[in-house]
Amino acid sequence: MSSAEINKNEVDIVIGALNADLTQFLTSWKSFFSGFHLIVVKDPELKEELNIPEGFDVDVYSKTDMEKVVGASNATMFSGYSCRYFGYLVSKKKYIVSIDDDCVPAKDPKGFLVDAVTQHVINLENPATPLFFNTLYDPYCEGADFVRGYPFSLRSGVPCAASCGLWLNLADLDAPTQALKTEQRNTAYVDAVMTVPAKAMLPISGINIAFNRELVGPALVPALRIAGEGKVRWETLEDVWCGMCLKHISDHLGYGVKTGLPYVWRNERGDAVESLRKKWEGMKLMEKSVPFFESLKLPETALKVEDCVIELAKAVREQLGSDDPAFTQAADAMVKWIQLWNSVNSSG
Amino acid sequence: MSSAEINKNEVDIVIGALNADLTQFLTSWKSFFSGFHLIVVKDPELKEELNIPEGFDVDVYSKTDMEKVVGASNATMFSGYSCRYFGYLVSKKKYIVSIDDDCVPAKDPKGFLVDAVTQHVINLENPATPLFFNTLYDPYCEGADFVRGYPFSLRSGVPCAASCGLWLNLADLDAPTQALKTEQRNTAYVDAVMTVPAKAMLPISGINIAFNRELVGPALVPALRIAGEGKVRWETLEDVWCGMCLKHISDHLGYGVKTGLPYVWRNERGDAVESLRKKWEGMKLMEKSVPFFESLKLPETALKVEDCVIELAKAVREQLGSDDPAFTQAADAMVKWIQLWNSVNSSG
Repeated sequence: MSSAEINKNEVDIVIGALNADLTQFLTSWKSFFSGFHLIVVKDPELKEELNIPEGFDVDVYSKTDMEKVVGASNATMFSGYSCRYFGYLVSKKKYIVSIDDDCVPAKDPKGFLVDAVTQHVINLENPATPLFFNTLYDPYCEGADFVRGYPFSLRSGVPCAASCGLWLNLADLDAPTQALKTEQRNTAYVDAVMTVPAKAMLPISGINIAFNRELVGPALVPALRIAGEGKVRWETLEDVWCGMCLKHISDHLGYGVKTGLPYVWRNERGDAVESLRKKWEGMKLMEKSVPFFESLKLPETALKVEDCVIELAKAVREQLGSDDPAFTQAADAMVKWIQLWNSVNSSG
Repeated sequence: MSSAEINKNEVDIVIGALNADLTQFLTSWKSFFSGFHLIVVKDPELKEELNIPEGFDVDVYSKTDMEKVVGASNATMFSGYSCRYFGYLVSKKKYIVSIDDDCVPAKDPKGFLVDAVTQHVINLENPATPLFFNTLYDPYCEGADFVRGYPFSLRSGVPCAASCGLWLNLADLDAPTQALKTEQRNTAYVDAVMTVPAKAMLPISGINIAFNRELVGPALVPALRIAGEGKVRWETLEDVWCGMCLKHISDHLGYGVKTGLPYVWRNERGDAVESLRKKWEGMKLMEKSVPFFESLKLPETALKVEDCVIELAKAVREQLGSDDPAFTQAADAMVKWIQLWNSVNSSG
């Protein structure tokens, strides 16, 4: 499958604008974004006017639009990195591709710029194999296949719910790690896509991600907001939490989540040492989340993604609510999100 | 960690000789096998004298040695590819590295020959991370780390039980796949090591493998022999079954299994179309094995590897025994193996 074979009408590229000037970002992606519809969502806390170069098919959403669609009281749930989720909410497309505005196309080992959009759509269109691990990586890639011993009954795979891309240069490390290894940059281009096995937990990053909105759209929920959340990735946890929900729900419904290609080149933003001065609660919250997700079992009656999110919110409230107010707020946000999703997507 | 830092006294390289002339094989590996102790086990069905070039520290075991150690009636369990297991049984070392005799060193993308022995030992010496998936691959590699959101409490990892290497040129496909895609060769060098998550099943191949014998030695058991097993890999299933046992026991005991680097270059051997003419039962047996391993729960009282194998054998007999005589034979072989292991390893 090549970029020419992709039905561009099925894809929305959603960009959360945390910086006002998108000129460099969009220009760098121009050849790969060309022909696709873009949804740019402006962080409601960003005061300046957005600077968007000409030549893109783009709809821009700001705080005013959010208030119109979800009401003024709900617009706060889309502040900071969570502004992306507003784009997920209002999209009508099958696939969403979302890339942070501090990333530019990476180069593969041969020196060619990586078409991240096409690679994400290929990942989503091909089946996933979460029920049995294939040591030869993605068996549907050109030149690859299933390894000896792989059960034939599982070779048709399952629908792929999400595609998690990776990062060259500044990898998605947390502030303590980045502060400890100030000079460390990721130079390892691992040329592989794989399905993360069912029941395995992983911290999904929102920096470079795509998903099948028709299949799992409501599972990508803006929920966990840590006290002192900032405007650099390592001061957030919204995407990691959302990813844990997404993976669990995908496992429950029999879908797969892939990781690996495509890479993006991630530029520097923020000062990790500075971030460390803030009291960062993310670490504590993750330690509590892991045993929760490990023991979580969604009821078999939860057959729709929306049901799964509601059930998950209930479990979060009951099992984690007393640990930290951030979890109760997350549960509230998850319920609210499903209300909004149903309202926006039925009225449309 | 470099090759110079490896304690060569802790490693046995075990080679199952299915071909009499090991000259080309051993010569190709000379620089990487140098200084290590080799155990060459001759397939008891191989009639010709072995041809082993000079300059290796090698002990050769033949059918006569097997009969001395395990008795004439038990020697049959080491025929064909299973002869390797005799080497695992008589070794006294911490680590075993085992490579099929139709493999030579691969070249990495820069054109350097891959030192598979060193890479395997590095994989085994570094911890594994089966309890949470790290999207940045092996976090203990030079230049790598844990991704944002990875729980800090899990960053010390667990002991690594086994390291499964991969194959360039002729990948480890089954006969139907190889026969269908006669021209297909694996050219994808994926520069990564990763831990296969806990609870995920995978078909471990015996072609290029290493393990910590002190930790899980008895779990590498020669058990499942299919009717019409041949002398080419795609006519066997012993390693895949053994790998399913090894992975399940490693999960149960809290150890990790890694896959990825090192690659070996696998030369052609056998005719896949010819193999297809034989009635191959492997496919049917795998289909039955998967739900078995998926639902298998070893009792918490099984704390030693030997206990786990015995419990596994019991479950195989009870749940799969009526499906196919190959499973009953496998269960018998597993019990016998533990008896042999205890006898050989306590008398030594």
